[in-house]
Amino acid sequence: MTEKDPDGLVRLRNALRQFAAERDWDQFHSPKNLASALAVEAAELLERFQWLTEEQSRNLPSAELEKVRQEMADVLNYLVRLADKLGVDLLDAARDKIALNAQKYPVERSRGSARKYCD
Amino acid sequence: MTEKDPDGLVRLRNALRQFAAERDWDQFHSPKNLASALAVEAAELLERFQWLTEEQSRNLPSAELEKVRQEMADVLNYLVRLADKLGVDLLDAARDKIALNAQKYPVERSRGSARKYCD
Amino acid sequence: MTEKDPDGLVRLRNALRQFAAERDWDQFHSPKNLASALAVEAAELLERFQWLTEEQSRNLPSAELEKVRQEMADVLNYLVRLADKLGVDLLDAARDKIALNAQKYPVERSRGSARKYCD
Amino acid sequence: MTEKDPDGLVRLRNALRQFAAERDWDQFHSPKNLASALAVEAAELLERFQWLTEEQSRNLPSAELEKVRQEMADVLNYLVRLADKLGVDLLDAARDKIALNAQKYPVERSRGSARKYCD
Repeated sequence: MTEKDPDGLVRLRNALRQFAAERDWDQFHSPKNLASALAVEAAELLERFQWLTEEQSRNLPSAELEKVRQEMADVLNYLVRLADKLGVDLLDAARDKIALNAQKYPVERSRGSARKYCD
Repeated sequence: MTEKDPDGLVRLRNALRQFAAERDWDQFHSPKNLASALAVEAAELLERFQWLTEEQSRNLPSAELEKVRQEMADVLNYLVRLADKLGVDLLDAARDKIALNAQKYPVERSRGSARKYCD
Repeated sequence: MTEKDPDGLVRLRNALRQFAAERDWDQFHSPKNLASALAVEAAELLERFQWLTEEQSRNLPSAELEKVRQEMADVLNYLVRLADKLGVDLLDAARDKIALNAQKYPVERSRGSARKYCD
Repeated sequence: MTEKDPDGLVRLRNALRQFAAERDWDQFHSPKNLASALAVEAAELLERFQWLTEEQSRNLPSAELEKVRQEMADVLNYLVRLADKLGVDLLDAARDKIALNAQKYPVERSRGSARKYCD
């Protein structure tokens, strides 16, 4: 999402800016509202999986995968929109969080354990 | 998320792959489970905003913004991980979805209206 | 929820049991899956409010209120279903949680402050 | 949820009213905000299950079950609070929704199929 990333998240951010501006939708796009919209889209994504077994979720029929792909796009688009409103660089934030998690879950103590997730 | 995007989402995807591999966590990362984790992180992000006014959400204190930034990172990281497991190119998907939405919400009929969101 | 319906949640639990049994849906109703479905329904409820102002959310048109009411029903039904599967008495749990929260947020220290929610 | 508690949800509603009034929290409890809080609590409930297999979710250790029970209580409490603010009778709404679903998913056409959930 930096200028070094010319055809990635920066371009997407700009396209979303223009989309909202053309429709005068910035008035609805407070961070609070965008965070709600993001959670709603994440749940719509989850809905595609909720009754599947884990194995079925690894082998989606192509029509279903396309629906999943569209829900993932909605999630990314609201996330990028929120990042734009808050001045957050998503890639920097993601990298920083991985570094934090590496400290929190050292390889030796975390291997093969889901405990981290629960405690 | 393509090879044309060298230091963006591809690099992030690779870092997340390595992080999971080192901890033997791929066994937990079925698409079904990752979709749940993504929804949970999106809700943790929403939690930061739930009692704020829209105006307050536009003016976060810096310590609060840092927490929000970390939750956004978690959302992105699970989204990228899910995309990796499903073979989805997130930037392509996002662009395709914007094109679909442009058809669904023509500028002239959508201007200044939140109706689109409700119907 | 009225005085005339003495065994409200028990009767509801039984109706939902029968509904699932008739359709042979218990096979899908693991606690994990029901928790997902509950989160999805809660997000569908949230979706009705996401672009509204707080003031608008207090004054829903009747047609919109009916949609909200149906989403609330979905949330309750999955919650009762999950409680049935786990052997949880929801009213007991709710009362216990209020007692816990009364300790956590003493009246004098919590009055008029949203801080409790954030820390 | 037992036969001994004739006015279960009404009593719970009243306890929650008093809890908020004592702390002057009604100012935060717009329907929009309560819907967010409900979605957040539903996600915290989901979090307890996200890395478990379906089988593990059916056999929770007792300490874990107690945490799940507390999250379920939070969901119910916010749902009852929202119903109070909107004047919705939850049990009536739940019964009406079951009747609607019975029409939507006739026994003969729905038996043993998760298709309903996906289409």
